[in-house]
Amino acid sequence: MPRQRLAAVTSSPVRDLLALTDRPEIISFAGGLPAPELFDVNGWRAAFTAVLSGPAARRHLQYAPTEGDARLRELAAARLTGRGLPTTAGQLLITTGSQQALTLVAAALLDPGAVVAVEQPTYLAALQCFGMAGARIVPVTADDPAAVAEVFARDRPRLLYLVPTFANPTGRTLPADRRAAIVELAERHGVWIVEDDPYGELRYRGEHLTPLAAGSDRVIHLGSLSKIGAPGLRLGWLRAPEPLRAALIVAKQAADLHTSTVDQAAAAHYLATTDLDAHVGRLRAAYRQRRDTMLTMLAQVMPAGTRWTDPDGGMFVWVTLPGPADTAAILPAALAHDVAFVPGAAFYAADPDRATLRLSFTTSTPEQITEGMRRLGTAITAG
Amino acid sequence: MPRQRLAAVTSSPVRDLLALTDRPEIISFAGGLPAPELFDVNGWRAAFTAVLSGPAARRHLQYAPTEGDARLRELAAARLTGRGLPTTAGQLLITTGSQQALTLVAAALLDPGAVVAVEQPTYLAALQCFGMAGARIVPVTADDPAAVAEVFARDRPRLLYLVPTFANPTGRTLPADRRAAIVELAERHGVWIVEDDPYGELRYRGEHLTPLAAGSDRVIHLGSLSKIGAPGLRLGWLRAPEPLRAALIVAKQAADLHTSTVDQAAAAHYLATTDLDAHVGRLRAAYRQRRDTMLTMLAQVMPAGTRWTDPDGGMFVWVTLPGPADTAAILPAALAHDVAFVPGAAFYAADPDRATLRLSFTTSTPEQITEGMRRLGTAITAG
Repeated sequence: MPRQRLAAVTSSPVRDLLALTDRPEIISFAGGLPAPELFDVNGWRAAFTAVLSGPAARRHLQYAPTEGDARLRELAAARLTGRGLPTTAGQLLITTGSQQALTLVAAALLDPGAVVAVEQPTYLAALQCFGMAGARIVPVTADDPAAVAEVFARDRPRLLYLVPTFANPTGRTLPADRRAAIVELAERHGVWIVEDDPYGELRYRGEHLTPLAAGSDRVIHLGSLSKIGAPGLRLGWLRAPEPLRAALIVAKQAADLHTSTVDQAAAAHYLATTDLDAHVGRLRAAYRQRRDTMLTMLAQVMPAGTRWTDPDGGMFVWVTLPGPADTAAILPAALAHDVAFVPGAAFYAADPDRATLRLSFTTSTPEQITEGMRRLGTAITAG
Repeated sequence: MPRQRLAAVTSSPVRDLLALTDRPEIISFAGGLPAPELFDVNGWRAAFTAVLSGPAARRHLQYAPTEGDARLRELAAARLTGRGLPTTAGQLLITTGSQQALTLVAAALLDPGAVVAVEQPTYLAALQCFGMAGARIVPVTADDPAAVAEVFARDRPRLLYLVPTFANPTGRTLPADRRAAIVELAERHGVWIVEDDPYGELRYRGEHLTPLAAGSDRVIHLGSLSKIGAPGLRLGWLRAPEPLRAALIVAKQAADLHTSTVDQAAAAHYLATTDLDAHVGRLRAAYRQRRDTMLTMLAQVMPAGTRWTDPDGGMFVWVTLPGPADTAAILPAALAHDVAFVPGAAFYAADPDRATLRLSFTTSTPEQITEGMRRLGTAITAG
């Protein structure tokens, strides 16, 4: 973020908004937070206690290798392998959340002025991160291979950033045939793909899709413990194609030397001793019901002509109001009715559709969702 | 680290060397690690157990504000205030180790081609970090105000990076009158000073010196729990002058959203419930004895004409061999004798003195230091 660009870089609107919605009476659909009542507190406490007991405890408080805890890398690799992406521990770099992975990729791959292609709308912290690296951001419709080919040929992007499964903010998933087509185009044009996959395990319907990285060495795959474990530990993993690995490790070393030794050790202990699939199954059951409640309520409370996505998984529903609406102008009325959402414009690199908004259904109970959606309907139809 | 500079950026020589010295028979003076046998394992285990128990436990596993844990910021501010640097919680940003603070400062302040002034020799990960940001690095003799004034006037640096207290790698401390002179020059020339202070509490002799930041709003002060608590938690704090604070928070948000919630909460609990001064007193007593043993042995084993620093605190002694020596060429002989050090050239931005080497005295017991220094003397005089 060199100084001449400081003025252009603003704090995340979502995070600023969250600060405003931290009143207990607010029902917030604004954050992208996992449900805290579903955290496995006992499991995590046991894990931290275990790794800080016994002869290895002192090692878990000391400096550690940049690449990450060997056992955690093994366990994360096994989990990726089980999900259709054959991976060895040596291919993985543990990151301080997958947000850090985005910064490392930007540091290793982007010169000022480099072009980054993104879906539109997309994860806004990725937009910020690439913007801070001085990249020029070009929107692309990932679901349309001909449009992708045109952008690749015309703009010659250095990388394409995708959340292909249960995207933030739309909840959409790229079908298998589109994945194959995009990978083929990336290989032909020499474009790196960043496959950001924090939500992939939170599927409520349909069959698991193979990650893009399984089909190509042009794909950098990012995974995270934040949505299936606990985000407070800031633990993610980056599966790096061999030619990029050394540069990413150097960037990680400059960024923070390594990720918290004790958090990594606790996560390795947790993954080795817990039935994570069973825990994820509980998350899926709870979140599926919350999604269904939200979709049911959307049909009841929204004005005629409103459209919304019907996500197969993840945390978000993307809503488009009818006519020339501006959801940023509706937000104050919503907050006055004690309900919060994120206006959609922030998720666009250019030409925002201001009639859009993002709703997260994971942090509220079905009862809260029912009540919150009633409030939202009142705020929208009254405004 | 844009791609055209990838080839110029190498992994830290110290960390690469550490990988080679990970044999149990090696006595290593190479690392800059605190002594693991002095970690307060019981205190840290109790802290993690406490913050993952009770009603706040779920909050300590959740996403959290970018600026850091409110209680930890209060406690770190109180500690800085007690050391002569009046600080409020609002002035501090919690960082993922103070290594991250360097990267945030680089992101917020440095354009490619910006000039960074550094002492010579200096902390090599700082050199890497500024190099990756595309900065031009200019050496300066901080102990000579006229030389500093000349560099400020001629090269117009954006910032001056200093480890003013028990520097890495030399162990030297900038006297009070020099601190005042440099601060005055920085204000006059509009140069930011980064005051990196990881070792300041590890004083074995003499009186505490007031941090440079106490005298000026041009100083960014970096502190760390790594040397007085445990480096594995990756916890540091950055005291940011007001005009930079917003930009540093945005850079932190892009870097990793926030530092580990559970580690921050555990550190706050630890600081609130432990007599850290007493713990630091134990570290000082142990490290003082280790420093004294190393200095005694240097006089016994080194060839005539060898010079070394006599640090008032910290972790390092800086040695200069007589004549046209090259310590990198001596290292293999040392490793063959099962002792390790860091050749000094890596700590220079330009024109290295190859007759120098860095010895760390904190990680070895006095008995190991005695034996290791005998081995080192043999390797040097035989080579």
